[in-house]
Amino acid sequence: MIFVNGVVTDHVAATDRGLAYGDGVFRTLRMQGDRPRWWARHYRKLETDCAVLGIPCPPEAILSEEVERATARSRDEVVKIIVTRGTGPRGYAPPRQPSPTRIILTGPAPDYPEAYHQQGVAVFMCRTRLASQPLLAGVKHLNRLENVLARAEWDDPAIAEGLMLDEDGNVVGGTMTNLFLLERGALVTPPLTRCGVAGVTRDVVKEAAAKHGMICREEPVSRARLIEADGAFLVNSLVGAWPIRSCAGRDWENGIGMTRVREWLDEAELA
Amino acid sequence: MIFVNGVVTDHVAATDRGLAYGDGVFRTLRMQGDRPRWWARHYRKLETDCAVLGIPCPPEAILSEEVERATARSRDEVVKIIVTRGTGPRGYAPPRQPSPTRIILTGPAPDYPEAYHQQGVAVFMCRTRLASQPLLAGVKHLNRLENVLARAEWDDPAIAEGLMLDEDGNVVGGTMTNLFLLERGALVTPPLTRCGVAGVTRDVVKEAAAKHGMICREEPVSRARLIEADGAFLVNSLVGAWPIRSCAGRDWENGIGMTRVREWLDEAELA
Repeated sequence: MIFVNGVVTDHVAATDRGLAYGDGVFRTLRMQGDRPRWWARHYRKLETDCAVLGIPCPPEAILSEEVERATARSRDEVVKIIVTRGTGPRGYAPPRQPSPTRIILTGPAPDYPEAYHQQGVAVFMCRTRLASQPLLAGVKHLNRLENVLARAEWDDPAIAEGLMLDEDGNVVGGTMTNLFLLERGALVTPPLTRCGVAGVTRDVVKEAAAKHGMICREEPVSRARLIEADGAFLVNSLVGAWPIRSCAGRDWENGIGMTRVREWLDEAELA
Repeated sequence: MIFVNGVVTDHVAATDRGLAYGDGVFRTLRMQGDRPRWWARHYRKLETDCAVLGIPCPPEAILSEEVERATARSRDEVVKIIVTRGTGPRGYAPPRQPSPTRIILTGPAPDYPEAYHQQGVAVFMCRTRLASQPLLAGVKHLNRLENVLARAEWDDPAIAEGLMLDEDGNVVGGTMTNLFLLERGALVTPPLTRCGVAGVTRDVVKEAAAKHGMICREEPVSRARLIEADGAFLVNSLVGAWPIRSCAGRDWENGIGMTRVREWLDEAELA
């Protein structure tokens, strides 16, 4: 099911700046019953990301209603929301009065093996690095060629995710996930001030850690630091949390510390 | 006039990866009579850029025929060609057998003042910097948010173009143009191995310089070097060559050395 500006269609204007320049942002989220999970957080992030690009964010009530209509009809569990700066004449200059395009796409839940949650995932170290662009770091914008190139590096279905490094060789996260390490009872997650996408689930984990008195630091994660960690896991809104089972020659025991993280995500789901 | 995959339409699929991830490349070119100027060069560049992304480039004959049909009908002078990896399911992984989307958009020639060619242009120094991404440097891909952010920095119609710096503070080129300096009878243009777009007109100038025995070096251009140059000009397929009249407090005399460069472009137009 696809809605574009509130209308059921499978097309967008060929002159949309989302296509021309990747001039827009997106969100991917899961339905929980008939409600989008963590909707308030997702909408807030959409607003923040739109603000970085100077795109007027569509009102919450409109998007919320469109998501509801699209999922009520389709019964789909995954919703992708794209907001672009809308159509415009040729040229990089943004229109002064942009009329943003709202695209709601629904689809079935991804069919990852249930073992990914329990036994963890095998992870690949991508060669494609993330460039440093402080102006866009953290934002889930539509310029995602680095992620595409990284994801194209492996074709082995046994590998669930690829990790990406920044220019200095520090691990930023997965192609579609954020990374956490477990180190002597504390959490560590890479800072996302120069590249990477700061996902909603990452925030949920950080806040839950604070609430439960567990230290969570944002610190650079070298490959060596990752490999020496007591455990590591990947999060996003679709998969929840996947413990890393193996990466770069290191194997970890079954989901160390994961029970706690999973409880936090379950709690947050109620919010 | 818009053709998508050979059909007159103004829409593309909402699931196109060009929209989802900027997963594609583009060209903007000018008609010369009823032929696209420098077609062979533009097609070669499209092929090269597609190859970097692993997108099968549509055959030359098909694109050429579609450009011809679109411009014959519209009499438009500017043609934009977008090639994306086509539609695909959600997720960064490129489809194994992509079916690329071909989009041909035509439009009128831009209405820049004729004075830009003779008296030159005033140029702005953008704050938005170009991130280093050697895997994508030189490629005219659809991930152009840096250009959009840079172009959004000024609104003064007296400013024709903005220059962008790399991470080290060297000038890479304009938001939509390539840069050349004139230094003691030689040309200098920034290397584009870490960022920037290597345009077709830049190649034409480099080749013409070689043919006419003028030295043309690819060397980093600091702001100081630009300001101390005997002259500077900007090139692209739409505008040809614009001498820079003023930039960062420095003024240059009327189009020093430009007669020669313009002759070269005119010669190359015949090819």
